[in-house]
Amino acid sequence: MSQIAKIKDVIITPVAFHDMPLLNSVGVHEPYALRSIIEVITDSTYGLGESYGDSTHLSRLQKVAEQIKGLSVYDTNSIYKICVKSLAGDTSTGGDGMAGMVTTASVADKVFSPFEVACLDIQGKKAGIPVSDLLGGRVRDNVQYSAYLFYKWAGHPGEPDDEYGSALDPAGVVKQAKKIIDEYGFKAIKLKGGVFPPAQEVEAIKALHAAFPGVPLRLDPNAAWTVETSLWVAKQLEGMVEYLEDPAPEIEGMAAVAKEASMPLATNMAVVAFSHLPPSILQNAVNVILSDHHFWGGLRKSQTLATICATWGMRLSMHSNSHLGISLAAMTHLASATPNLDYACDTHWPWKRRDEDVVVDGALKWTNGGVSVPTAPGLGVELDREKLARLHQQYLDCGLRKRDDTAYMRKFQPDFCADLARW
Amino acid sequence: MSQIAKIKDVIITPVAFHDMPLLNSVGVHEPYALRSIIEVITDSTYGLGESYGDSTHLSRLQKVAEQIKGLSVYDTNSIYKICVKSLAGDTSTGGDGMAGMVTTASVADKVFSPFEVACLDIQGKKAGIPVSDLLGGRVRDNVQYSAYLFYKWAGHPGEPDDEYGSALDPAGVVKQAKKIIDEYGFKAIKLKGGVFPPAQEVEAIKALHAAFPGVPLRLDPNAAWTVETSLWVAKQLEGMVEYLEDPAPEIEGMAAVAKEASMPLATNMAVVAFSHLPPSILQNAVNVILSDHHFWGGLRKSQTLATICATWGMRLSMHSNSHLGISLAAMTHLASATPNLDYACDTHWPWKRRDEDVVVDGALKWTNGGVSVPTAPGLGVELDREKLARLHQQYLDCGLRKRDDTAYMRKFQPDFCADLARW
Repeated sequence: MSQIAKIKDVIITPVAFHDMPLLNSVGVHEPYALRSIIEVITDSTYGLGESYGDSTHLSRLQKVAEQIKGLSVYDTNSIYKICVKSLAGDTSTGGDGMAGMVTTASVADKVFSPFEVACLDIQGKKAGIPVSDLLGGRVRDNVQYSAYLFYKWAGHPGEPDDEYGSALDPAGVVKQAKKIIDEYGFKAIKLKGGVFPPAQEVEAIKALHAAFPGVPLRLDPNAAWTVETSLWVAKQLEGMVEYLEDPAPEIEGMAAVAKEASMPLATNMAVVAFSHLPPSILQNAVNVILSDHHFWGGLRKSQTLATICATWGMRLSMHSNSHLGISLAAMTHLASATPNLDYACDTHWPWKRRDEDVVVDGALKWTNGGVSVPTAPGLGVELDREKLARLHQQYLDCGLRKRDDTAYMRKFQPDFCADLARW
Repeated sequence: MSQIAKIKDVIITPVAFHDMPLLNSVGVHEPYALRSIIEVITDSTYGLGESYGDSTHLSRLQKVAEQIKGLSVYDTNSIYKICVKSLAGDTSTGGDGMAGMVTTASVADKVFSPFEVACLDIQGKKAGIPVSDLLGGRVRDNVQYSAYLFYKWAGHPGEPDDEYGSALDPAGVVKQAKKIIDEYGFKAIKLKGGVFPPAQEVEAIKALHAAFPGVPLRLDPNAAWTVETSLWVAKQLEGMVEYLEDPAPEIEGMAAVAKEASMPLATNMAVVAFSHLPPSILQNAVNVILSDHHFWGGLRKSQTLATICATWGMRLSMHSNSHLGISLAAMTHLASATPNLDYACDTHWPWKRRDEDVVVDGALKWTNGGVSVPTAPGLGVELDREKLARLHQQYLDCGLRKRDDTAYMRKFQPDFCADLARW
């Protein structure tokens, strides 16, 4: 029993890990994905957070890190206030690691999130309980994730093919799904669309539906379609998808599609901050929020979002960017303690090399398409400093400082168009 | 550090404490107010909760108490689920200790609340931190309360005058305000109305305004007025009250008043559960929610309510029923950790005899119109078992089993009308 759990130091380490050439509406994933690893250190222990690795975001995190020393790890109200204050006059854009896809998520919430997660990690360690217990206790012991399929090239240009090879048509997508499901046992499938003309992506979903009868499917074109196209796709996929994700841009676009589409509409683009909820709800724009603690202000605010969804009759799923083990642990704890989580969560986990992470192996166990919720105190993952050093060196060496899928794509397709609603 | 914090036993003790003949729209306070004292016991410590004392509520609490033994004090998700399940088929009404005033607050949230508070008390004790830290840390060290004035008789019929004496006209109300502010230093004043014809209550507010220039005032007739009357009062009190509380009944009535009234409208009657928020917000019915952890499902759900208020641009204040020290501690911790608390909270504290409580004296210190937030682990209040036994004996002896202000009033005024919107 101790009241003293003051933040003594904060260490932020940018890391890079190999990524595959995954295609999306704004381009293609670069050879490395960037993340920031946050260590909040007290006299007796440390806590972990993970966030975006773009340089703008890193410098925002660093600015906060210097101001929270001496605060209690329980004093998240003060940490949040510091995040808000430290952003005053900050006019830099981006830094969200979302590749330039439209988002005006609350910057304070994004900056605050990894510090909150690290503080909860410490709170759990100090109390001898997993983070899920801090969040109200597990309502499920295994958190289900979806098979997150991507159209992709066989390998990065100039490099050998990666282990997944290419997926550029319905057959390739089905082949990818089989490989990924064989390994992980996922029971829901999401296809990242917005890459090919909508008719081709509709065919891919139909192929998946035929190959995996009864498996819930989702298609996410990242707002690459007009309202009209979205409605055409919705018609084609009636009875085939559990939800259609961000077909058209903005709350207004989603609302127009929602009026006529037969399936629920989900979003992690139109509604990505608390301030978007009132207008979205007013317009009945979306039925499913893809929550993400990285931009909704951490685990507790994500739980508040969950209660808002329950209150307004919206459903809840979970979004993912490319991430490492700290984020997977945090996502899993959050999902395990959220009663009204209605769908398998998204994760980019399979696209990460098995030997690249920053946490000690073995804490995150995949079974049956899901992750067993860690029961060790805190997040249940510990830093592997050798691995962290390796991924940090990779960050220094790779030269990437900002995710830019579009610029990378244009190296190979100079006329690539990343406009929203271009179909 | 221990993962073992299982609930070994739960003891629920009904208590009664002396109350004064305070008038409201449905009648007059009886000579005793009823409360339930909840002790959640683990191997190493215990936690406290306090709730309504009506027999219906007591039997609901007892039913849950028997089912949560063996659960972890962190597993509030399971405790909530048990509350919901144990209410299946429960068609009894009342039990909310709100004297028959209209409320359809979520019964599960009301039953869950004291168990959650007790679990947080234990969580705090185990971690060596005050409950305010579990809730994100204090943003204020002193929680301000308002001077809660009541029209009242000099004493209960057949009894000697109490120390406050009568307050049945503007002069009496001002005299009461002076006494109560002299003792506590309150910096905001609320008058419970709905007792006399509205013109007389308007005069009382004007008298308070003259006697306490610059002090924020509130008037709460508990929905005793029609929309037309509410608008007339609103016009009379323009620029004089910080908010008008529950002038007219139901969301619809409030919305009609809100459309034309110049001051914010507050409620603890029209919006008393999460399910009331969507229709209320859709109709712009209220500007201020008077939260109350006793019916909003505990401290964490009250924090969710606070975020909802911030998100939808509503303000936040706090409601009170007659209560003892455990509730005051819980209210104070919650208020201290809620950044967007915009007003002084309500409390019935001054109406309680100084020597009647169930907690050890000295933990709750009044200064400057507020309570210093306890910094000891947990709620910071400990049970005084001798006092608890005395108030329990008082409960057994007094014969009251259900709050009924109307029936008590009709003993003396057989034709008393308790209808809503009767003016």
